[in-house]
Amino acid sequence: MTFEEAYRHLCQWSAEIAYVGSAMAICHWDQRISIPPKGHQHRIGLNATLAKVRHERLTDQRVGDWLGLVEESELLADPLSVPAVNIREWRRSYDRMRKIPEDLAVAIARAAAQGESVWEESRPRSDWEKFEPCLDQLVSLKRELADALEYEDEPYDALLDDYERGATAGSLVPVFDRLGKGLKALLERIGASSNGPGSALKKLNFPVEDQVVFAREVAAQLGYDFQAGRLDVSAHPFTTGIGPGDARITSRYDDTDFSEGFFAVIHESGHAMYHQGLPLEHWGEPICRPVSLGINESQSRMWENMVARSLPFWKYLYPKAQERFHSLRDVDLKQFLRSINEVTPGLIRVGADEVTYNLHVQLRFELEVALTRNDLQVADLPDAWNEKMVDLLGVAPPDHASGVMQDVHWSSGSIGYFPTYTLGNLYAAQLFSCARREIGDLETLFERGEFEPLLQWLRAKIHSQGSRYEPSGLIKVVTGEELNPQYFLDYLEQRYSAIYEV
Amino acid sequence: MTFEEAYRHLCQWSAEIAYVGSAMAICHWDQRISIPPKGHQHRIGLNATLAKVRHERLTDQRVGDWLGLVEESELLADPLSVPAVNIREWRRSYDRMRKIPEDLAVAIARAAAQGESVWEESRPRSDWEKFEPCLDQLVSLKRELADALEYEDEPYDALLDDYERGATAGSLVPVFDRLGKGLKALLERIGASSNGPGSALKKLNFPVEDQVVFAREVAAQLGYDFQAGRLDVSAHPFTTGIGPGDARITSRYDDTDFSEGFFAVIHESGHAMYHQGLPLEHWGEPICRPVSLGINESQSRMWENMVARSLPFWKYLYPKAQERFHSLRDVDLKQFLRSINEVTPGLIRVGADEVTYNLHVQLRFELEVALTRNDLQVADLPDAWNEKMVDLLGVAPPDHASGVMQDVHWSSGSIGYFPTYTLGNLYAAQLFSCARREIGDLETLFERGEFEPLLQWLRAKIHSQGSRYEPSGLIKVVTGEELNPQYFLDYLEQRYSAIYEV
Repeated sequence: MTFEEAYRHLCQWSAEIAYVGSAMAICHWDQRISIPPKGHQHRIGLNATLAKVRHERLTDQRVGDWLGLVEESELLADPLSVPAVNIREWRRSYDRMRKIPEDLAVAIARAAAQGESVWEESRPRSDWEKFEPCLDQLVSLKRELADALEYEDEPYDALLDDYERGATAGSLVPVFDRLGKGLKALLERIGASSNGPGSALKKLNFPVEDQVVFAREVAAQLGYDFQAGRLDVSAHPFTTGIGPGDARITSRYDDTDFSEGFFAVIHESGHAMYHQGLPLEHWGEPICRPVSLGINESQSRMWENMVARSLPFWKYLYPKAQERFHSLRDVDLKQFLRSINEVTPGLIRVGADEVTYNLHVQLRFELEVALTRNDLQVADLPDAWNEKMVDLLGVAPPDHASGVMQDVHWSSGSIGYFPTYTLGNLYAAQLFSCARREIGDLETLFERGEFEPLLQWLRAKIHSQGSRYEPSGLIKVVTGEELNPQYFLDYLEQRYSAIYEV
Repeated sequence: MTFEEAYRHLCQWSAEIAYVGSAMAICHWDQRISIPPKGHQHRIGLNATLAKVRHERLTDQRVGDWLGLVEESELLADPLSVPAVNIREWRRSYDRMRKIPEDLAVAIARAAAQGESVWEESRPRSDWEKFEPCLDQLVSLKRELADALEYEDEPYDALLDDYERGATAGSLVPVFDRLGKGLKALLERIGASSNGPGSALKKLNFPVEDQVVFAREVAAQLGYDFQAGRLDVSAHPFTTGIGPGDARITSRYDDTDFSEGFFAVIHESGHAMYHQGLPLEHWGEPICRPVSLGINESQSRMWENMVARSLPFWKYLYPKAQERFHSLRDVDLKQFLRSINEVTPGLIRVGADEVTYNLHVQLRFELEVALTRNDLQVADLPDAWNEKMVDLLGVAPPDHASGVMQDVHWSSGSIGYFPTYTLGNLYAAQLFSCARREIGDLETLFERGEFEPLLQWLRAKIHSQGSRYEPSGLIKVVTGEELNPQYFLDYLEQRYSAIYEV
């Protein structure tokens, strides 16, 4: 076999796995959007079968030989060429897969399925005693997984790498330290401000059909291609990149709350525009994947927060919003802007504002590192959680449902996932600052409703690169420096000192 | 390995193939209902990959050994027991699969994909010259397939068996002869009637939203469980049985035509109720499949025609229809009934009434048998078509689009499929007559809006039997006699002599 033939085999193998992934994505979307109530039970076996089909292909015995051949070839000459990137990524995932004992993989999958179902049942009742043994087992299994995958400094690094390649606990600790200090200082000034939280939008009415039409129009104007996607309603907003020409988003609406539905649409559009901008001519190959959860999140956060919660954006859009929603006619732009940028320390991460959000993540990151190090036992987790909430955010959960049991992630063993949310915010601010330097006055463009220059910049710098670089390398190449949380702190300082006049 | 272990392996193997089939059904439904315009190209590779995954499993080398073990066991003691039926069906499909050379299977799949795409392009232009070579190749390949599959009397039988197990050209010829004579005689009397076609519904308005609500209500009342299904709009109405708790239907609506949307919903509900009534505790095993296309079609036709186009049914429903649709308030029940039962010989099968419909099928059946025998060449097909149309229906197609090129079936090589439509009508009439004998006065029940007795009878006699019997055996067991077209002729005679007063 020549190395060209081996490379073709690898491409076909990779594409088939991707196509099975697309089928899984369609079934997942269907299960969130279209399935009849009695159809759920059947999906358990269906999802397991597709996962098995995918796993069989991922562990195809022939891949090692093919990789051996292409790795000796001239295809690696330029490490940033498409074939070299593909080979690098195939090798990484193939080796990773082979390090995980079959028994452990099965045990984790089973514990994750059970954990999620126990969590769903016990969370509404704040029943920690019921959930604790599941989580305890998952943490043990994840420690075992970290050992199997090997690591240099911290077991946490082996888990984190799955979500944000190359990131380590050691590199994140100083980032969270610096960020946390800055955020707490800003939060204190905001708390002391006499311009209290904006309640201008409280108790107003926003008919859901109007919200959908309005959000669709705005998403389309930002650059989300509805010919290659669609917008539906689901219990939790999400984006799914099914394949070229098909990246779908969902949102949920509340007719007394403008922000929830609207900003979810913009957030998910940011993810979906990333999918729509990937190098789709290489679909099925690793180069055509979002590089990491953090970079993916930077795209949603930039459009949601840096663009769509800004003054220039609403200078352009507010008259149109007032035209669509009668209830906004008595709310002036300044009141509106303060309402959609209200800062209040709260208990729940998913409802948190931009300033406090990352303190929620810091809490989870610190607890996760301690758990994987065995410095903290699952039995002691609720107390540790509650103490840290008071320390970081100044609020104490009245129960576990709004405390340690609030997020789904741990129940399915997703340990190491949370930091990618904060990395998304940090990347977004650093990239946005760079875009402003390179494109020029973005604010004036937004005031005129011109978003194409920013989208084109992201297309060129981020989307079309796919997985060519590692996330940290991509940030360095695009912005000229390493990840620097100061950009995010500066961005918050500028926005919130203006809004709260502090 | 014990025979019990072998049987468990077979069940698991069978269920995995069924789950992959469910995923294909979901992707197919999505492609008809939800896909964004730019997503279609990607689906070609996705569909091909799932088909490949399914084929790999179908041809699993271990199946022969497992079958060998269970076939020597006591599981076959009662040939109508669930295990015996499953083993019989696994053996049948396994042997069939092994008779088809890989090359031939690939050639047919490729020619079918190409044929359909050429047909789609050339049909609107009536471009027979473009389509002819594709069809010629498909007919040759299908002759080859028939030889590979082996047959006793006619090559056609090997193809027909795929759609209606056990049916043969030899058994269908006398059925179509008798049927054709009876239909032509009835048609002549109707044509000579002074009570011309009912045009009471022409140019009336039926708002689409009202049609959807009305059809949903009626389908639910007939017994279609919307908790285990859903109703959507698609270009061509269809039913898809995804799995237990999930059998979906679609329809299409025209606001100037009440019949099209309404009867499509009832027709598809008939299919879906069959799926909902299968022995679902055995889902994934052959016993839990619709036994044949003909039996499946009998369920849709019975509800659509025997029930929902009958006088007793509308005695019950017409006041509700008049309440929903203002435009019906000036149309009396007799006019309405004649309109929805209008008989007119036409060019197009899918738009044909109950009386002329089976003459369209007879034409295709006779041409297909001649083609597979090599008595007719594809080049001579258009002339043969046109002659037969005049002979059977008294109309001559002005072009190929409304003649030989009207149906999609041949373009994908589906030769032997058409007769199942007529078998569906014949089975439906024979079963309905038997139901009336056993349940009692169905007409009085329908007048009172009571459909549960008929559904329960079908559940017990047909649905819950799954694939236990062959189609002809099922009809014999349920009705006590072989397939007999006289029931259908009697049914038509009774209905149309009343409506047309002939």
